[in-house]
Amino acid sequence: MQLIRQLEKRLNYTFKNHELLEEALTHKSYHKPYNNERLEFLGDAVLDIVVGEFLFLKFRNKKEGVLSKMRASLVNEESFCRLANALNLGDCLYMSESENNNGGRSKPSILSNAFEALMAVIYLESGLDCVKSVFYPLMESNFDINETLLKDYKSSLQELTQEIFGVTPTYSLVSESGPDHNKTFTMQVFINEKPYATASGNSKKNAQQEAARITLEKLESKK
Amino acid sequence: MQLIRQLEKRLNYTFKNHELLEEALTHKSYHKPYNNERLEFLGDAVLDIVVGEFLFLKFRNKKEGVLSKMRASLVNEESFCRLANALNLGDCLYMSESENNNGGRSKPSILSNAFEALMAVIYLESGLDCVKSVFYPLMESNFDINETLLKDYKSSLQELTQEIFGVTPTYSLVSESGPDHNKTFTMQVFINEKPYATASGNSKKNAQQEAARITLEKLESKK
Repeated sequence: MQLIRQLEKRLNYTFKNHELLEEALTHKSYHKPYNNERLEFLGDAVLDIVVGEFLFLKFRNKKEGVLSKMRASLVNEESFCRLANALNLGDCLYMSESENNNGGRSKPSILSNAFEALMAVIYLESGLDCVKSVFYPLMESNFDINETLLKDYKSSLQELTQEIFGVTPTYSLVSESGPDHNKTFTMQVFINEKPYATASGNSKKNAQQEAARITLEKLESKK
Repeated sequence: MQLIRQLEKRLNYTFKNHELLEEALTHKSYHKPYNNERLEFLGDAVLDIVVGEFLFLKFRNKKEGVLSKMRASLVNEESFCRLANALNLGDCLYMSESENNNGGRSKPSILSNAFEALMAVIYLESGLDCVKSVFYPLMESNFDINETLLKDYKSSLQELTQEIFGVTPTYSLVSESGPDHNKTFTMQVFINEKPYATASGNSKKNAQQEAARITLEKLESKK
């Protein structure tokens, strides 16, 4: 019970239905008539809407395709495993001896599934607004949202140009200026040999990212 | 406005935010600064949880894999298109002349997306419980839930045996009895040449379905 109390403290939430909580914390290896797979099924949908709504309201100018990509970067095993670790959720799980000896308490899939199941419990007993009040602070203290969501313009652009044009973009160096310790690089991005944007940065990579970001905006406004 | 009032009547719901409603009814072909794609993104998640919770609570003995399959049979373009048609949603949509002339008002993808967007509007302005109170009656009056969800045991069994054993089940006729107009067929199902279940029915197909159903239960209780 000490572990549960610590979990509740980290979540800033007090569980009401301890049978449901036990189900959420029970891995299928534990050989009980119940385990957390059904709750995980529901929790997955709970987190989809909670994160989806967050993005929908926060990024009012972003189109559906961008929102979907953003959600996928937050709603995945790696992210939920990180949140589970922040809660020390692994220590609270019921699992078989062999799964335990096999490192089950730190397996990303086990932790991520248990985290989803836990959110389903809060949803079932306290509703969606309560899930939001638990999940949003957890998300914001464990992810740099802007960094997580917006970092990789080059990859996003590549996916988009593959989708629209069936090709990948190319980048070429336009100019390099300034002293060695403080250079400015200017890169230009081409799609099908047509130039789309030019941008500068303190490294070739940063200049490419910025050029990709501008191109993404151009393409998305035309979609 | 007459069309909107009819839509509200069919939904048994009165919209509060008419800007949001207009967004939900606007197809991207209409060339406005907004269209229903962002709302569809959110509505998709709304319907996932609404249907997921319905199944989670209704089928308390079904495992996660079965629930997922059931949800997939309800949460898809065809189903939402059927609901959109029940609401006459096509008549309420804003779309370009050319999309209109091209049969856009009866395109399944356009209708399904608009339906999802509409559910997102209800979610945003009135909350998830209100979506449930609108969606559940609509679902129940347009689908035979048990029929839709449980009909195809043979396909389900095939997917499951592929997953577990890497093979498809085979069926063989054990016996045929009774007069021509009222025969009873008994079929046996084998996986990897091992018999799993025997069942009878008034056709080979029905006997196979029943044998598949029993086998599914056996396999799922072992999972």
